[in-house]
Amino acid sequence: MVVAKSWTMVRHFEGAPKLEDFKLIENELPSLKDGELLLESEFLSVDPYMRPYSKLRLKDGDVMMGSQVARVIESKNPDFPVGGYFVAYAGWTTHFISDGKGLRALPSNWPENLPKSLALGVLGMPGMTAYIGLLEICKPKHGEVVLVNCAAGAVGSVVGQIAKIKGCKAVGSAGSDDKIAYLKEIGFDEAFNYKTVSSLEEALKQASPEGYDCYFENVGGTYADTALQQMKNFGRIAVCGAISMYNDSVPQTGPFIQPYLLFKQLRMEGFLVSSWEDKPQHQEGQKQLLEWVVEGKLKYHEHVTNGFENMPAGFIGMLKGENIGKAVIKV
Amino acid sequence: MVVAKSWTMVRHFEGAPKLEDFKLIENELPSLKDGELLLESEFLSVDPYMRPYSKLRLKDGDVMMGSQVARVIESKNPDFPVGGYFVAYAGWTTHFISDGKGLRALPSNWPENLPKSLALGVLGMPGMTAYIGLLEICKPKHGEVVLVNCAAGAVGSVVGQIAKIKGCKAVGSAGSDDKIAYLKEIGFDEAFNYKTVSSLEEALKQASPEGYDCYFENVGGTYADTALQQMKNFGRIAVCGAISMYNDSVPQTGPFIQPYLLFKQLRMEGFLVSSWEDKPQHQEGQKQLLEWVVEGKLKYHEHVTNGFENMPAGFIGMLKGENIGKAVIKV
Repeated sequence: MVVAKSWTMVRHFEGAPKLEDFKLIENELPSLKDGELLLESEFLSVDPYMRPYSKLRLKDGDVMMGSQVARVIESKNPDFPVGGYFVAYAGWTTHFISDGKGLRALPSNWPENLPKSLALGVLGMPGMTAYIGLLEICKPKHGEVVLVNCAAGAVGSVVGQIAKIKGCKAVGSAGSDDKIAYLKEIGFDEAFNYKTVSSLEEALKQASPEGYDCYFENVGGTYADTALQQMKNFGRIAVCGAISMYNDSVPQTGPFIQPYLLFKQLRMEGFLVSSWEDKPQHQEGQKQLLEWVVEGKLKYHEHVTNGFENMPAGFIGMLKGENIGKAVIKV
Repeated sequence: MVVAKSWTMVRHFEGAPKLEDFKLIENELPSLKDGELLLESEFLSVDPYMRPYSKLRLKDGDVMMGSQVARVIESKNPDFPVGGYFVAYAGWTTHFISDGKGLRALPSNWPENLPKSLALGVLGMPGMTAYIGLLEICKPKHGEVVLVNCAAGAVGSVVGQIAKIKGCKAVGSAGSDDKIAYLKEIGFDEAFNYKTVSSLEEALKQASPEGYDCYFENVGGTYADTALQQMKNFGRIAVCGAISMYNDSVPQTGPFIQPYLLFKQLRMEGFLVSSWEDKPQHQEGQKQLLEWVVEGKLKYHEHVTNGFENMPAGFIGMLKGENIGKAVIKV
């Protein structure tokens, strides 16, 4: 008999999520039926999308949404033998029963020396978000200038590195000097701390006086308003996130952006990587990311919070930007 | 010796252009040199773009920008014999000398019974703007729902009709009941007067309860804010104009749109038809529009202001939305 611990969202977040918005519950799991398997989470992911999507998808008291790398610890399904590792979307829980649907196996050529947690980061959803958003939405050409914000995060750090691999100039902004040092270490051409520069506009101009061809958008709000004005003609903006706006109960306002789009002929597109999962680009991307990581062309960093009991704190810290690279919870 | 009359912009417009912002001047034109030709404007175009672009491109006292259908009345260039008709971008002027560069001949298969002024409207820049913006930016599929505002204008009226030709549902809004009657006459499935509906949101929902796949944007501002919320997932927005914002000295503000783009995976793109002039789609479009007009599939209406002396009034009236279809000045 296995007891699953899970974190529920007690009530919908108002403003920034707080520790008291979460509650740890325990559930005794039933015995497996034929075709079922029992999995144990080893690493769980905390990601910015959970803030807006909990509002759209969850009701008060539901287990928080999310994914994990989990190991099969008992199985009545011959397709999923004990010991296998899978990425699942089972929410914030230590153990769960599955019929195998929706489980994604780690690639068969996964190198022994790579942490399996990378399947939640550079080799998982965030890495693929960077890959698809940059290459399929922004479509940068060799020699172009790519801007990414939240650049030291799980997605942004991959965006900048892929930009470099593709022969672009990578400019990133982040919110601490440690993060800026990290960005320079992993090859960004220009990086600045948006919290300490005297003017975002000036910082953007200094980093690329000619402007920007591609803008990988994770922040939204007034940052975006300033950045959009620095785009070159025919620039492309991939809207991946809007983390500065997720905690708003009243939407932030600013100048309407139609004139920016119109007079510079910009293309701005929102995307969700999940919509690309069945497309060939996604499969190619997964192969490519693993290859780049193995070759050392794509570096990664993980910000690990130890202990399932600390998962809400890890989530809250990630939303505040405490992490460099991918924030994960090690059970 | 020919005297050219021209309208200058005395000073940059503040708010809505006023009659006193324009001044009529006269210039004696010199004799032609070899290779030159003298043209006389028969029809001149007034278009919304002149409001924002005069700010970007002109200085106080310059002749207003714009295009005309003009006839060669004297020629020292064998490639441009007397009597030929051309579309030129010579500004608001009755006569001008050209070396032939930049003149665009009317198509050789132009039917005798079609007014040559259509080369400034449905068969000119506005028609091509509708064609490119709808088919190349929005890319509607058969059965999809297309929204266009300023729908009774030179561009919008063509957008809705092409949408119908392509098997879409066409929804249009405009600012008078006469315009709405016109929209129904030319085949829009749904049309409403945005000035008299009690709620734009409700009117949009009623016209298409399922939402919109394509949105051809001419207005911007709060209209756009409401319309963007009615888009379906994977909707496409062609930003062609933002007429509600052109007279602002302080930019209008509203909610940032990143969340709309992100959660519905919308694509929003500003475009200028002039950037398409060298592309094969432009040539195809010009052939196609003429064919549709000749076949009666594409209807047009012109709002003609008589007299070059009334051109500023015609421009001001067009910006106020007094026209149904294309506003032109007949010299």
